[in-house]
Amino acid sequence: MGTDKNDRILLAHGGGGQLSDELIRRHILPKLKNDTLAELGDSAKLDVDSKSLCFTTDSYVVKPLFFNGGDIGKLAVCGTINDLAVAGSKPVAMSLSLIIENGFEIKLLDKILESIGKTARRNKVDIVTGDTKTVEAGAADGIFINTTGIGVRLAKVELGVEEISVGDQIIVNGTIGDHGMTIISQRQGIKFQSRLKSDCAALAELTCELLEKTSGIKFMRDPTRGGLAATLNEIAGSSGKSIEIRETDIPVDKTVQAAADMLGFDVLTIANEGKFIAIVSSESARDCLKICRNHPLGKEAAIIGRVIQTKDVPLVELITRIGGRRMVQMPYGRELPRIC
Amino acid sequence: MGTDKNDRILLAHGGGGQLSDELIRRHILPKLKNDTLAELGDSAKLDVDSKSLCFTTDSYVVKPLFFNGGDIGKLAVCGTINDLAVAGSKPVAMSLSLIIENGFEIKLLDKILESIGKTARRNKVDIVTGDTKTVEAGAADGIFINTTGIGVRLAKVELGVEEISVGDQIIVNGTIGDHGMTIISQRQGIKFQSRLKSDCAALAELTCELLEKTSGIKFMRDPTRGGLAATLNEIAGSSGKSIEIRETDIPVDKTVQAAADMLGFDVLTIANEGKFIAIVSSESARDCLKICRNHPLGKEAAIIGRVIQTKDVPLVELITRIGGRRMVQMPYGRELPRIC
Repeated sequence: MGTDKNDRILLAHGGGGQLSDELIRRHILPKLKNDTLAELGDSAKLDVDSKSLCFTTDSYVVKPLFFNGGDIGKLAVCGTINDLAVAGSKPVAMSLSLIIENGFEIKLLDKILESIGKTARRNKVDIVTGDTKTVEAGAADGIFINTTGIGVRLAKVELGVEEISVGDQIIVNGTIGDHGMTIISQRQGIKFQSRLKSDCAALAELTCELLEKTSGIKFMRDPTRGGLAATLNEIAGSSGKSIEIRETDIPVDKTVQAAADMLGFDVLTIANEGKFIAIVSSESARDCLKICRNHPLGKEAAIIGRVIQTKDVPLVELITRIGGRRMVQMPYGRELPRIC
Repeated sequence: MGTDKNDRILLAHGGGGQLSDELIRRHILPKLKNDTLAELGDSAKLDVDSKSLCFTTDSYVVKPLFFNGGDIGKLAVCGTINDLAVAGSKPVAMSLSLIIENGFEIKLLDKILESIGKTARRNKVDIVTGDTKTVEAGAADGIFINTTGIGVRLAKVELGVEEISVGDQIIVNGTIGDHGMTIISQRQGIKFQSRLKSDCAALAELTCELLEKTSGIKFMRDPTRGGLAATLNEIAGSSGKSIEIRETDIPVDKTVQAAADMLGFDVLTIANEGKFIAIVSSESARDCLKICRNHPLGKEAAIIGRVIQTKDVPLVELITRIGGRRMVQMPYGRELPRIC
C-alpha cells in the first residue's frame, strides 16, 4: 500500500483532502504553471482584452489515450483552441477538468499533463483553473478530460452562415480523415497503422492570420466528429444554400484512403482534429489559399468546392472522379465512437 | 431497435451526425433555451459587462444521480455558480458538457436537463455552449457532467487570503454536512435517510448582497469536498494565520449529526453544496450575520470562530463542547468518493 499512493490514482486523490492537494501541487501545477492557476482559488481571476468573447467546451473520451500524432491531452487543448479559432477569436484562457479512474497510473497522467502543458504554452493559452475527480475502477475508462476555453473576438470580424453567398469558395487547410483513420486503425490493429498519423493541431495562429490579412472570410468550422460530410451538411442546412465539392480537389493522404477503403469507411465522414473549412468570397479565395500554403498547417490547403443555388432543399453534392454527382448525406452517427 | 433510439442513449448520439443533432434539438435545446445557445456554433459569442472576470470549472460524478434535495444537474449548476460567487463575482454564463453511457435512459437525461434548465433560469445564468459525448456501457457510470462558468467581478471587491487579519470573524451561512450525509446515507440505505436533505443551492444572490452592502468581507470559500475541515485548513495554510472555531457555535442538523455518529464520520469533514465560509472584519461581522439571516439561504447563519495568532505553524483548532481544544486536521481524502 505504501508505494501505491505514488504510482496510481486512488479515490482519495479526488476527495478534496491531503492527497488531492499533493496531486495538484506535485503533478498538475508544475506542468501547467502560470500565476493565475497557482492561486488555486475557487475561480480564476481573469482580465481579458475585450468585452466581446467566445466561449466553448468539449469533453474528450478518445480511446486509445495515446495515438500516432498525439494523445488525449494534446487533443483536449487543440480541440478547444480550434473551436475558439474558427469562431473568429484568439484563445486566451482555458480550464481543465479531469475525471480519473481509481488505479490509473500516475506515470500516464504525468505524460498527459506534460502534453497539455506543452500544447498550451506553445499556443500561448494559459490553463487558469481546474478540477480533478476520481471514480471507482470500472466507473470511467481510464481518464476523461474536459477543457473549456475563452477567446477574445477579433475586431471587425463578423463570421456567420448568414454571410454566405452563392459563388463563395470552400477551402480546407489540408488532407482529411487523418485523425479518425489513425484512431480506428490503432484500435483495430491494422498492418500499416504506423504510417497513419493524426492531424491533431491547434489552428488559431493560422485562422487569426487569415482573418487579419484578408477580408473575404464568411464562415469557418472545424470538421471533427462526422467529418467534412457532417460539417458541410450543417452549413448547408443552416445557411439554406447548397454546396458542391469536387472529389479530385479534396486532399486525402494515400494511406488514409487505403485504410478507409479497407475498413469500409467514407473519408468524408471521418473526423479531423487539425483542419478547418473556410467559406470565402470568390475574390479572396486565392489570397486565403496562399496564406494557408505558407503556413506549416496549411501546406496542402485546397479549394475543394463552392456554394451553389439551392433548388428544393439545401444539399451537399459531390462531383465524383468520373464526373458523376452524388449526394453527401449527414452521417447517421455511429461510424466512430470515442474518436475525440 | 426501432424504439430504442427514443428510449435510450446510443453511441451514435455522440457521433456528431443525425442522432447527435436530434438529441440536441429535441432534448437539450428546449430545456436550456436562450438565443446564444440556439446558434449552436463551435463557440458561443458572449458580450460581458466587464473585462475583469472569474472563470471556474467542475466535473460532477455524484452517485446516486438523484438524491433528497437535488440531482446531478442541479448540483452541477449550483456548484459552478458557488465557485464564482465566493470569488466575488456575479455569474453570467455557463457551459455544459455531458459524458453519457450507452444505454442511459433518455427519460432520466430529460429529468436532469430539466433540473439544469430550471436552476440556471432561477439564477439568471445562461447556458450558452455545450458538448455531448457518448461512451460504451461500462465505460462511464451513467452520466458525468462538466459545467464551466464565467462571472463578472464585482467592482471594488478585493477578496484574498492576504486580506485576512488576526481578530477577523468566521461566518457560515447555515448547517454543515447536509449534502455529504444525504448522499452517503442514501448509498448505505440507512433508516432515517428520508429525513436528510442535501443543502444543494446557488449562493450568488446572497454573496452578491453581502459584498454590495458591507465592506468587511476579506475572503470567502465554499466548503464542498473535505468539508469545513479542509476549507479552514486551506485558509490557514495559505494565509499563514491560525483559526479557532467553537463546536457549540457550529450549526449542525440533528439528523445529520446522528447519521455522522452512526456511520463514524466527523461532520467537519463532510461536504456541503449550499454553504460558504466568510472571513469578515470583527466590525462588520454583526452586519454580515444580519444580512445572511434575512435571506432564505442564511436563516441559520452563525459566527463560528475567529482568526488567531499563529504560534509555530498555522493550525485550525476546535474548542470542544466541554471546553477542551483539539486540532482539526486536513482530511486525508478517502472519506467520501463521488460526493459531487
